[in-house]
Amino acid sequence: EILAAIEQHFSENAFKGELPLKGIKALVTSGPTHEPIDPVRYLANRSSGKQGYAIATALARLGAETVLVSGPTNLSPPPGVTVKNVETAREMLAACEASLPVDVAVCAAAVADWRVDIDATQKIKKEPGASTPELRLVENPDILATISHLTTNRPSLVVGFAAETEKVIEHAVAKRARKGCDWIVANDVSPETGVMGGELNTVHLITRDGQEDWPLLPKQAVAERLARRILAHFTDRDKNA
Amino acid sequence: EILAAIEQHFSENAFKGELPLKGIKALVTSGPTHEPIDPVRYLANRSSGKQGYAIATALARLGAETVLVSGPTNLSPPPGVTVKNVETAREMLAACEASLPVDVAVCAAAVADWRVDIDATQKIKKEPGASTPELRLVENPDILATISHLTTNRPSLVVGFAAETEKVIEHAVAKRARKGCDWIVANDVSPETGVMGGELNTVHLITRDGQEDWPLLPKQAVAERLARRILAHFTDRDKNA
Repeated sequence: EILAAIEQHFSENAFKGELPLKGIKALVTSGPTHEPIDPVRYLANRSSGKQGYAIATALARLGAETVLVSGPTNLSPPPGVTVKNVETAREMLAACEASLPVDVAVCAAAVADWRVDIDATQKIKKEPGASTPELRLVENPDILATISHLTTNRPSLVVGFAAETEKVIEHAVAKRARKGCDWIVANDVSPETGVMGGELNTVHLITRDGQEDWPLLPKQAVAERLARRILAHFTDRDKNA
Repeated sequence: EILAAIEQHFSENAFKGELPLKGIKALVTSGPTHEPIDPVRYLANRSSGKQGYAIATALARLGAETVLVSGPTNLSPPPGVTVKNVETAREMLAACEASLPVDVAVCAAAVADWRVDIDATQKIKKEPGASTPELRLVENPDILATISHLTTNRPSLVVGFAAETEKVIEHAVAKRARKGCDWIVANDVSPETGVMGGELNTVHLITRDGQEDWPLLPKQAVAERLARRILAHFTDRDKNA
């Protein structure tokens, strides 16, 4: 109820001309990563980047100095946000590390868990009669866990995303503990939900204190609500300091 | 020289208001295919679909009744063209077969040679300590070879594309023989050429009679030149009938 009141108080209109996150540095990751198999083929995922772009936009509107590290998307750079475009998970991690220190990191990108254990410089050819190739996968760096476990320059608030197709809350609670981040925004990306690539999102915010179920909202509204929660975090921190 | 004269004669201006391919049915495939690994991941390739869309546009402008079977792209449907959107190679083949009979088929799509031998309905999870998954690939249907070897409804002209990164001509000549198509449009898609996703293309037209090297041209000009060559094919055929 206290949070709801704060959220109400800091509704969009209340910020007209004010920049309550001024002085806060934010890092947002967004989009898929593409992991090359050869010069023409790659592994991809269906992330559109819309949720992460909306979060970067909402944080910048509240005055945060915002860097958006984005995998390949068709989206326009949000106004007032510094965009660093990357393709692979390894490039995304490097761009994040180069953006530190920040006060808050929101890891919304759908980073490929695996890349292919080859990076052929010539196109793999389909030879008549030859056996089909096997793609051996190797684990990509875990950007969320890496940032969460930093011993120097760890952001004071690290927010991860969990895209699940089953047992959404259970997996998200486990993911929060495993990754070492502060909050997890969990959503159900089963194809029938239309979340991946779509305009709407139903999310659950998992914090140390428990679970909040947010209603079905446009991704932009999810972003604004998350930005206000981030603001409340820094407001509380400053009050308690 | 005869062909050059025909091409000159039928230059774009000569068609003002005329529709010399009226009565001809054309099928064009374009774009990449996406092959799902699980609900969120897929195999893809860097084809933008620009060359195929330009060819469909050029054929429709000359009056051909044109169907474009397109993999996932960001392009707008060309005016006057019937577009059938597909995702996978198997869907593309089915859409092509449903579009027959046609007089000319131009297979410009970068069809994935392989798909993954699973189609998980649940997201593959990265389990701590578990071994990394292997992706076993299986061959996709060969759309160009299938259309070229049809015993009924084979188009009178089947044009394939070869995207190569080395030995471009040698591979294209072999591909023409192997697939059983009439012409191959061969291009070098090495990353340094910028052809994949770019606006320009250097192609070689491989026919029964030999090889033509076309200069570096915008993809639209390649499309118009190919459309005029297709027109010349049908003009010659009708003259010799």
